[in-house]
Amino acid sequence: MHKKAAEEDVDLHCTTWRFAAEMNNLAPWKSIPAECADYVKNYVMGKGYATDLERVSEEALIFANSVEFSGDGKDIWVFDIDETLLSNLPYYIDHGFGLELFDHSEFDKWVERGVAPAIAPSLKLYQRVVDLGYKVFLLTGRKESHRLVTVENLINAGFQNWDKLILRSPEEQHKMATLYKSEKRDEMVKEGYRIRGNSGDQWSDLLGTSMSQRSFKLANPMYYIP
Amino acid sequence: MHKKAAEEDVDLHCTTWRFAAEMNNLAPWKSIPAECADYVKNYVMGKGYATDLERVSEEALIFANSVEFSGDGKDIWVFDIDETLLSNLPYYIDHGFGLELFDHSEFDKWVERGVAPAIAPSLKLYQRVVDLGYKVFLLTGRKESHRLVTVENLINAGFQNWDKLILRSPEEQHKMATLYKSEKRDEMVKEGYRIRGNSGDQWSDLLGTSMSQRSFKLANPMYYIP
Repeated sequence: MHKKAAEEDVDLHCTTWRFAAEMNNLAPWKSIPAECADYVKNYVMGKGYATDLERVSEEALIFANSVEFSGDGKDIWVFDIDETLLSNLPYYIDHGFGLELFDHSEFDKWVERGVAPAIAPSLKLYQRVVDLGYKVFLLTGRKESHRLVTVENLINAGFQNWDKLILRSPEEQHKMATLYKSEKRDEMVKEGYRIRGNSGDQWSDLLGTSMSQRSFKLANPMYYIP
Repeated sequence: MHKKAAEEDVDLHCTTWRFAAEMNNLAPWKSIPAECADYVKNYVMGKGYATDLERVSEEALIFANSVEFSGDGKDIWVFDIDETLLSNLPYYIDHGFGLELFDHSEFDKWVERGVAPAIAPSLKLYQRVVDLGYKVFLLTGRKESHRLVTVENLINAGFQNWDKLILRSPEEQHKMATLYKSEKRDEMVKEGYRIRGNSGDQWSDLLGTSMSQRSFKLANPMYYIP
């Protein structure tokens, strides 16, 4: 096969893989396919990922603007943190863009440095959502012991004025993300909040019980959290 | 701008649009973006769509094989029909691949001809699912008055041995698809069925109440049903 045709085949195969991953059609996966390593690198380092992140923020903002507020302060927007507000791309650049198996202790060291940059289009959405009068709840799989460094990182990256920052307690450490996040949303609904929007890069941020009126799935071809 | 660079920009923009559509990030849309007409045509007529359809069937089959049956005949698989089992691509070839606004009476005429071909990878999945012992429920937005032509079309396209074919009754005609399909799934669950898999090309086939254990979203960049 000619080189160009072989490259086109890999591109087609990896685009199909990425779609299947983003549409939640794959069984839980632990690393990206080896043959798609260059494809994923080119996507996240190039225009593709940036354009996708801009689009999802624009769509979310259109919706955020369209909601009619009751004025009782009970309309909320839920944001995940990693790969939603903050980017761990500097870490993944050093760890094969999802090709390496996830290393908890290595990743913890990165988180504890507190230097993850903002995802720029998400910061723009975040600020508009705050300005519009939504209450903002941050719901993350990060552990409670990382609260301080997470707060510092968020503030240094430009995020301010959230209403709640919910992290995993030690006893929630081994719950599946879908269940943990659903339970936290259930509590919000029980307290009378209306979850208008929910932004996350994992389907486990978005699916389950007490789902938001509209969900916004950010691209993430590097890892999967069930 | 050079012609090639301009083409690459359109390609990037339309790929981002397609991802946003497939990830359910867009507000309900009535036609594809005009600037993406060629892009959508090339995708559905070329290898991209075919490869995506093959992949989702393969992933569904891996899951279907992995389910441990209780043997009580209560494990079911739900399939949507249009753009899931049967392809209306011959119709859309004549109607701009989603660029034209949907024309109910024109589309009805096409449906009434009963000649929609099978989506080949879906037929393969369907047959394996039946062979594995799942009960198969077809849940479609088509109306009850199209039952006969739908049955004939399905059989001519190679589909057999379904357990239920559920169409919209006249009083359900104006219900949103998400609600109509959720209510039908609620009934299945109430009757003691376990919805193991659900295959559909619209998120309104998959989201709502009584969701299946695993959902499989087939690609469809041509139209959106809320």
